[in-house]
Amino acid sequence: MPDVITTDAVIIGAGPCGLFAVFELGLLDIRCHVVDILDRPGGQCAELYPEKPIYDIPALPIVTGAELTTRLLEQIKPFHPEFHFNHMVTGVKKLGDADFEVETDGGLTFRSKVVVIAAGGGSFQPKKPPIPGIEAYENASVFYSVKKMEALRGKDVLIVGGGDSALDWTINLQPIAKSLTLLHRRDDFRAAPDSVKKMRELVAAGKMSFKLGQVTGLQGENGVLSAATVKGNDGASFDVACNAMLPFFGLTMKLGPVAEWGLNLHENLIPVDTEKFETSVEGIFAIGDINTYPGKLKLILSGFHEAALMAQKVFKLKNPGERLMFQYTTSSSNLQKKLGVS
Amino acid sequence: MPDVITTDAVIIGAGPCGLFAVFELGLLDIRCHVVDILDRPGGQCAELYPEKPIYDIPALPIVTGAELTTRLLEQIKPFHPEFHFNHMVTGVKKLGDADFEVETDGGLTFRSKVVVIAAGGGSFQPKKPPIPGIEAYENASVFYSVKKMEALRGKDVLIVGGGDSALDWTINLQPIAKSLTLLHRRDDFRAAPDSVKKMRELVAAGKMSFKLGQVTGLQGENGVLSAATVKGNDGASFDVACNAMLPFFGLTMKLGPVAEWGLNLHENLIPVDTEKFETSVEGIFAIGDINTYPGKLKLILSGFHEAALMAQKVFKLKNPGERLMFQYTTSSSNLQKKLGVS
Repeated sequence: MPDVITTDAVIIGAGPCGLFAVFELGLLDIRCHVVDILDRPGGQCAELYPEKPIYDIPALPIVTGAELTTRLLEQIKPFHPEFHFNHMVTGVKKLGDADFEVETDGGLTFRSKVVVIAAGGGSFQPKKPPIPGIEAYENASVFYSVKKMEALRGKDVLIVGGGDSALDWTINLQPIAKSLTLLHRRDDFRAAPDSVKKMRELVAAGKMSFKLGQVTGLQGENGVLSAATVKGNDGASFDVACNAMLPFFGLTMKLGPVAEWGLNLHENLIPVDTEKFETSVEGIFAIGDINTYPGKLKLILSGFHEAALMAQKVFKLKNPGERLMFQYTTSSSNLQKKLGVS
Repeated sequence: MPDVITTDAVIIGAGPCGLFAVFELGLLDIRCHVVDILDRPGGQCAELYPEKPIYDIPALPIVTGAELTTRLLEQIKPFHPEFHFNHMVTGVKKLGDADFEVETDGGLTFRSKVVVIAAGGGSFQPKKPPIPGIEAYENASVFYSVKKMEALRGKDVLIVGGGDSALDWTINLQPIAKSLTLLHRRDDFRAAPDSVKKMRELVAAGKMSFKLGQVTGLQGENGVLSAATVKGNDGASFDVACNAMLPFFGLTMKLGPVAEWGLNLHENLIPVDTEKFETSVEGIFAIGDINTYPGKLKLILSGFHEAALMAQKVFKLKNPGERLMFQYTTSSSNLQKKLGVS
């Protein structure tokens, strides 16, 4: 039986709103665990546009998604949030009157006073290529992400795709793979020109292969791949021998398991009030892009505001009957002590 | 008759929320004039705590009020807001169905589609010393702020107070005044030590006087001051000859003229909805510390959120029937063009 992690708040999603929720809750002495399906903090900012500038964060005339994430991590450091990456929250269950049990697909179980859903557009999930029977190989020979590079050492690796992930992993895995083939449907990439150049140099040096075409079938048994059948752009089929295949066809956003937690939903969004940003279940809050209310704009700055108001209600749930004095970080030595600056 | 300035929006208050309102409105092509009672942008941040750090602006782990103001001014530069400092908005009047007439105590008249009240705690107004008959001299010989230094050239100036304003103006006006006396009730100052040192050097060099005591009466006629009667700390009275007196006793916040514009008020705050942050009068919005709604927190970050949602409604008022496509600065080349970055 797995250990249960006991905490005040479980925050689902480590994007900007989830991170800032740690700050607002931290000011009120509410300790947080943060769970994210991605392998690092930042959410959409980190995954979809780490290098693209954002211009509408107040008082940051220009900031990249990556820098915004770094800045927020710096800001919440005094509160020592605990992160659990590569975990998808699969279950949220109310236990009696007060607590929640939260479970992840990676086997973690939390018991918390409140749950804060800051899951943006939902769960990022890999787009799967339409290859018959691919399910039988998933997580054994077919991987949609690389969790441990070492697992691919000495393998005959086939990477499929033409975006940054495909090119980056081609360059990163080539040195440790026994052989590496990159397959893409055309000789044109949606990836950093520098990565494309590096890949072409590896091909020119005979260190890897690049082939044009699409995978139409897989060969192997018991989940162990031996080759992929490829239809070339001339219509002829050929095989690529491989015992690991990594299709990088991008990520898609799905609402995911949230739909099954008994919350009222409206067009895949979670309706909340504008006083506490609480869902239809007391103790479960929704902030950022995943919620909806009259006037809602999917702006990062709105999620920040929502986090602040949500925190007030969480304080009341954690400290019933206690009066919360509203304080400013500029003038309160109490808050400054928590922030480690006084 | 004064010229009328025609614009889309008049923003009352150049504090952080008023400044960021320029940004959100600017993204939607709504042009703004900003009026503030202070002599510079920043509002309370600039007036009350320019050098004190703020810790709860998202993604700015530590920022002073002055730096926050500078950053916001940089961010709104592409929208060329026009500022009118040292003006207090005295009147806001609805003209028929659509427009507003906005007047200031400095004689400006605006005609605008909308009015955005971002006035924080209200108007900063000078605290007046309790001197009988002082009203008769105000704005003729007694000034609570210095609008034009030149008006004081060659005058016998009496400055009263012991804070930064009193000390700063002592140092700035001494070179152009005919004579200058600083009067304070004790030989101890709430001002930058460096300013106090400079003042003492001027006294030692015989270039000005410093006296201890409190003004108890004024002498002169028709608003023209000839001397102030001072009660010294030993209980004896003496006169200080002067034809200009500048009392710097700090600023106080008052709701001010807002109370007379026909808006519903609640405990000196303006109730708004949480969809558009509109007041009880269509076309007049209230954002930041001056508004109230269920859950309201007087946080700068909440004012930023309110500005964003307010701007959507302003767009509809300015462009009736037109559909507003919600766009992101990260991905919209249209918005990036407005920001001058593409």
